Amino acid sequence: MFAPVYLDHNATTPLEPAVREAMLPWLSEQCGNASSRHDYGRSARRAIDEARSQVASAIGAHFSEIVFTSNGTEANNLFVKGAAACMKPGLLAVSAIEHPSVIRPAEQLVRRGWQLHKLAVENDGQVDAQSYRTALAGKPRLVSVMLANNETGVLQAVDALAAQARAAGALFHSDAVQALGKISVDFRSLNAAGVNALTLSAHKIGGPKGAAALVLDKRVEIEPLIAGGGQERGLRSGTENVAAIVGFGVACELAVRNLAAVAPRLLALRDQLERGLRAMGATLFGLGAGRLPNTTYFALDDVDGETLVSHLDRAGFAVASGAACSSANPEPSHVLRAMGVAPELARGAVRVSLGAASTAEQVSDFLRILQITVSKLLRLTAVAV
Amino acid sequence: MFAPVYLDHNATTPLEPAVREAMLPWLSEQCGNASSRHDYGRSARRAIDEARSQVASAIGAHFSEIVFTSNGTEANNLFVKGAAACMKPGLLAVSAIEHPSVIRPAEQLVRRGWQLHKLAVENDGQVDAQSYRTALAGKPRLVSVMLANNETGVLQAVDALAAQARAAGALFHSDAVQALGKISVDFRSLNAAGVNALTLSAHKIGGPKGAAALVLDKRVEIEPLIAGGGQERGLRSGTENVAAIVGFGVACELAVRNLAAVAPRLLALRDQLERGLRAMGATLFGLGAGRLPNTTYFALDDVDGETLVSHLDRAGFAVASGAACSSANPEPSHVLRAMGVAPELARGAVRVSLGAASTAEQVSDFLRILQITVSKLLRLTAVAV
Repeated sequence: MFAPVYLDHNATTPLEPAVREAMLPWLSEQCGNASSRHDYGRSARRAIDEARSQVASAIGAHFSEIVFTSNGTEANNLFVKGAAACMKPGLLAVSAIEHPSVIRPAEQLVRRGWQLHKLAVENDGQVDAQSYRTALAGKPRLVSVMLANNETGVLQAVDALAAQARAAGALFHSDAVQALGKISVDFRSLNAAGVNALTLSAHKIGGPKGAAALVLDKRVEIEPLIAGGGQERGLRSGTENVAAIVGFGVACELAVRNLAAVAPRLLALRDQLERGLRAMGATLFGLGAGRLPNTTYFALDDVDGETLVSHLDRAGFAVASGAACSSANPEPSHVLRAMGVAPELARGAVRVSLGAASTAEQVSDFLRILQITVSKLLRLTAVAV
Repeated sequence: MFAPVYLDHNATTPLEPAVREAMLPWLSEQCGNASSRHDYGRSARRAIDEARSQVASAIGAHFSEIVFTSNGTEANNLFVKGAAACMKPGLLAVSAIEHPSVIRPAEQLVRRGWQLHKLAVENDGQVDAQSYRTALAGKPRLVSVMLANNETGVLQAVDALAAQARAAGALFHSDAVQALGKISVDFRSLNAAGVNALTLSAHKIGGPKGAAALVLDKRVEIEPLIAGGGQERGLRSGTENVAAIVGFGVACELAVRNLAAVAPRLLALRDQLERGLRAMGATLFGLGAGRLPNTTYFALDDVDGETLVSHLDRAGFAVASGAACSSANPEPSHVLRAMGVAPELARGAVRVSLGAASTAEQVSDFLRILQITVSKLLRLTAVAV
């Protein structure tokens, strides 16, 4: 039996072999707790510190600006709720297309007396300038807008948005989980523009599940979500997952080193895919905006996305409908809704997200099988009607 | 070069080979996100569910009562702050010898309007009955008392304490991180007595760093610390660390299966160790109380604990002074302070915590090297004075 072709890299990525190799000693003889003051403990501490340097240098941050967490969701919660806990309740602005790990903690803050302004986006998925100006006029204390959307791949002009937020006196956070490894991400220049914090995650870039980071300007005060022994400068306590952190460091180094070679290759494959989809009459979402080179989000008239994904799975292709992280929820995508896509079309949404190992042959096979599957589904629908 | 002898199992444990074997596929071809609706995703979901069953059955809990977290510190924070968030601020009682991952979140609640009663302990390390009655008379909403202390190994009569707490109308949580795998832990009977939640951790029982659990009576409402995609029944969002969770499941199964054989062996080794320490004139902490079979906490007059641990490390023995998780902090142990130990003796505290692989030869070697090291340190002190 052949393994299905994996075209769902925005959900998670296969572990890079070099990452796994780097992790294995930390799942074997290297068993120490990084807080222990003996040889086993000191080795673990050194490994974490090396990974911290690798992550920092991959994005142009300083070693001391990296706060390791268990995943991107935790890092987003840490910033949104941790920064809010150091302020008086006020206005908070997040884009309507943020990942649930930004929207849900923002909604939790509403129950603590905060007001939430969800920033509207235009049809192409970019934050609407008028909605943003209106939000800033209300003097928000916190703003969060993602660098790249997980469903559409649409990029936001985060440096310009951050500069406006700073002028209005707000702290600015950006979820860079989907951007890292696919486009250049430089914290130093983003920070100069006004970005106070970024979220990164290992498992989206060939690293392991279990490690992520909040990159945090040290002038920003936040309260820890997880308090205890004082690890991570007191901002995230608990015994560190050494193996996963080590893997994250290596994955960052690889992702940045390979970016210049991988990005144009992904873009060529995406263009090949989208030419085929257009020929089938598909609607492509996020056209007109800058997008990640690996992400295609489309729908075909009268074809249900969930059903299509399930048939493609049986035919040997792993793709997503809606966002993987919230696919327990069968409602049409909140991202497409915010972009003004009609609900009946949004229900057809399917995401293909390519990765470093994707090939032109996989893309042409996918297009062929998609054509066959869609024809079959449309015949079934016709019969049912 | 020989690897140092590891006698610090309360800080963390080496990964069991069978646990590592079970994890490896999830760091290789099994790369899915458990929320994805394709073959890769469903495999990951099944693996998490199997681990959930393994953890649940190891402690007599129901599958649906297990909430996976990234570590014990997170699980303790989740209960303390998550339960408090669903209540009006009131009185909270935790023992003075709790791990910082209970004490720090309790202190955070004080800043949200809660009152904190730190329960006094007797000289042997058990919660003082009078202090407990006084606390309960104040009608606390939440009580947290650990099953076994990480430094002394002293056990608490948690079922009796929980029954009293229930009668007083309080929710009762117990940190069982150090108890699991060393004594029998049965959530069903503890729950019947009045325990509403338990904290467990994988890396203390031969499992990996990166997985832990809050075992939670489903009738108890808590608010998530980490909100987002709705994983773990909405109580802990974020992409699951499948490999670590799989390892946790296998580690639980092994720990419980081996307990009957391992516990008496550890007890015999601990007795051998403590006979030797007594012969050297050591003070042993927690005598008179029931203790974990693997933990010895001692001090020798005029010998500094930190210095001794550092010399023992160079001589090839990994042991701890104070609690590993907070050893960034050089103050004498808060546990010994609460037990009324004089600060000058508490500064001498050294913890030896045995594990499944510890041997009688290691213990006798340790005693011999300890004798030599202590003689050398006392001579140095004499010269310095």
